[in-house]
Amino acid sequence: MTTVGILGGGQLARMLALSGAPLGLRFLVMDNVADACAGQFAPMVVGDYRDESALAEFASRVDVATFDFENVPAESAQWLSDRVPVFPNPGALATAQDRLAEKTLFRELGIPVPPFAAIETRADLDAALAQIGTPSILKTRRLGYDGKGQFRIKTPADADAAWDALGAQASKVGLILEGFVHFQRELSVVAVRGRDGEFRAWPLTENWHVDGVLSASLAPARVDSALQEIAYDYARRLGEAMDYVGVFALELFCRDGELLANELAPRVHNSGHWTIEGSETSQFQNHLRAVLGLPLGDTRMVGLACMLNWIGEMPDALPMLREPGGHWHDYGKLPRDGRKVGHATLRADNADALAAALARVGEALGRQAQVTPVVARLRG
Amino acid sequence: MTTVGILGGGQLARMLALSGAPLGLRFLVMDNVADACAGQFAPMVVGDYRDESALAEFASRVDVATFDFENVPAESAQWLSDRVPVFPNPGALATAQDRLAEKTLFRELGIPVPPFAAIETRADLDAALAQIGTPSILKTRRLGYDGKGQFRIKTPADADAAWDALGAQASKVGLILEGFVHFQRELSVVAVRGRDGEFRAWPLTENWHVDGVLSASLAPARVDSALQEIAYDYARRLGEAMDYVGVFALELFCRDGELLANELAPRVHNSGHWTIEGSETSQFQNHLRAVLGLPLGDTRMVGLACMLNWIGEMPDALPMLREPGGHWHDYGKLPRDGRKVGHATLRADNADALAAALARVGEALGRQAQVTPVVARLRG
Ligand SMILES: Nc1ncnc2c1ncn2[C@@H]1O[C@H](COP(=O)(O)OP(=O)(O)OP(=O)(O)O)[C@@H](O)[C@H]1O
Ligand SMILES: Nc1ncnc2c1ncn2[C@@H]1O[C@H](COP(=O)(O)OP(=O)(O)OP(=O)(O)O)[C@@H](O)[C@H]1O
Ligand SMILES: [Mg+2]
Ligand SMILES: [Mg+2]
Repeated sequence: MTTVGILGGGQLARMLALSGAPLGLRFLVMDNVADACAGQFAPMVVGDYRDESALAEFASRVDVATFDFENVPAESAQWLSDRVPVFPNPGALATAQDRLAEKTLFRELGIPVPPFAAIETRADLDAALAQIGTPSILKTRRLGYDGKGQFRIKTPADADAAWDALGAQASKVGLILEGFVHFQRELSVVAVRGRDGEFRAWPLTENWHVDGVLSASLAPARVDSALQEIAYDYARRLGEAMDYVGVFALELFCRDGELLANELAPRVHNSGHWTIEGSETSQFQNHLRAVLGLPLGDTRMVGLACMLNWIGEMPDALPMLREPGGHWHDYGKLPRDGRKVGHATLRADNADALAAALARVGEALGRQAQVTPVVARLRG
Repeated sequence: MTTVGILGGGQLARMLALSGAPLGLRFLVMDNVADACAGQFAPMVVGDYRDESALAEFASRVDVATFDFENVPAESAQWLSDRVPVFPNPGALATAQDRLAEKTLFRELGIPVPPFAAIETRADLDAALAQIGTPSILKTRRLGYDGKGQFRIKTPADADAAWDALGAQASKVGLILEGFVHFQRELSVVAVRGRDGEFRAWPLTENWHVDGVLSASLAPARVDSALQEIAYDYARRLGEAMDYVGVFALELFCRDGELLANELAPRVHNSGHWTIEGSETSQFQNHLRAVLGLPLGDTRMVGLACMLNWIGEMPDALPMLREPGGHWHDYGKLPRDGRKVGHATLRADNADALAAALARVGEALGRQAQVTPVVARLRG
């Protein structure tokens, strides 16, 4: 009997546990809140990731540990990995936690990135703005998610406001200025790397964000296979460089046919949720297979899939449940502004059928804005 | 927040909970043993189904109740249904629990059945043998499963041995004598009926038993669609007659192109496990959708699927995990002689690919005997 420990008890941990159960695995989830939604289907240790006694209890009860939450303090991950195997390794986690470190790695590996500069002082910001220009985005280096900790600088006159908003973070979590990319598409490659170095990836996914938060994903992305090969190559290089084990996602901007790396998520990723129904093996089960040193599962998909995120509160389930290819995912969370509370995946055999189903659901839910860009892509 | 109560905490309850989690459901499982395998992923009430205080606790914590175990005492199901909605209804459960009642219903509905007779005394057995002839099978009316509680009467001379083996059961659970059917195939139709009477069924499945226990299932069964329509018609009539809500399986013998009904299982069924990966909607999720009055999910399948049962102990997982279409299901049970501890499902796009994959796995596991009849059917 193998128990997998998961640091963080959100929807990712929940879906990991649900998809790992058929492998005969047990799970133990650690989270600092007792009502974390993974706790509905797995036992929990409630405690802060910095609390050594809680971490010690967690370590004593698991055979291997992994992450639902990428911002587990690097020291906690390191402390844990001295006691039980931890995948991905704490070094990879640390790199992915820091926008400066990951972008530096992208550049070292020859992966194109938007221009960026580390910002420690107000003077650094002015210098970087002079060099990178506007529009650009000031971001915290660490702890950002769902577009939080970002300030968009449209003209140099916004520098004061940006510094007012984020300057105090410079000494805490660090800051980075990035050139704004006028991309046509956002893409992600969700990939998995085994303990033995085997690499697999799911079809490239196109993503749409609203207010910095993922709103919809479409797989396979409607791009030519050469672009997909480039994305796979970047992901493969990153996996090797970080000696990564498990699933990760590389977020990419596509501008004029060129791919620029945005960030790497060291975990299963929201843009890979469609793999639960849309692929022979889900990202969740493949993450567990990788972490446990088992053979990786097939990442092929049949047909097309579109994932719609539910933010804040769950919409009416019926329109989606009535669709032959509709699959519902309610994370069992209480509604809260901006919170990811669930998603749905629509599967179809061809683009026309998927577009029609999306249009029906968007109409029935009054969510035309969410489905329209996807429908346009499918029909375009 | 809806909590679904499940009476019985075996692998069926476990898979119900795992497939119902995405609907945002909570589960509460009742079983008389504390280490029932569903308890690894759902909270439990441990107690005997006849213990009113345990049942009362269960009832007070659930919004609706259903079954993993078909032999819950009819009175307990009735007691419960006076307090919470119970699906399928206790009357349907009672009919399906009694081989005499269900066979009588089959006959009333014009569904062909093997000859059968109720047996209360030794004299009844002799009279029935004279009428039905040999070979035939003496079975307990209630509480049989996996071929237990059966005695095969090859010649009239076996009557004494049959009575020695089962005669004492006549006054306890009742007995029935059935004519032995020299079938060419065993088939099952797994169907679901909604609260509103909507009926859907998955493709017909062919099943192979070893020592009375299911060993392998193949879907879709390699039969012509007219036969499938007949099976659907039988299942539809039964569902209506019993006012059934949820998933049920009708086990059929196919002899010389004719279908004879064997028994009805008032629950999700082992021959429907392939629907987890092989169908747009699994039998588990559709059972829950039905029980909750939600729209039923699409029962279509893509390609072919074969399920192999693991009895007694789990075999090596690696050969199956290495197959692109291989899916593993370890129920988290301790090994025990004759116990269903897990299964695996192999999916493929065509019969040749499935046969080849089955042959590889059978060879790697030294389980040629288990896969051979399925491979022969696929190649035949
Ligand atoms: N340099 C950029 N140029 C243009 N758009 C950007 C840039 N950086 C971020 N964005 C937009 O903001 C979104 C969120 O940014 P980013 O991925 O850096 O933040 P995050 O907080 O990690 O979000 P998430 O957790 O959703 O990935 C991006 O997906 C993109 O739509
Ligand atoms: N009348 C019959 N003629 C021929 N074979 C039979 C007959 N009854 C049962 N069998 C064989 O024995 C198997 C098990 O019988 P049955 O389905 O009645 O028992 P069970 O204990 O309910 O089994 P399970 O729980 O696996 O469905 C059947 O699937 C079939 O292979
Ligand atoms: Mg991002
Ligand atoms: Mg049977």
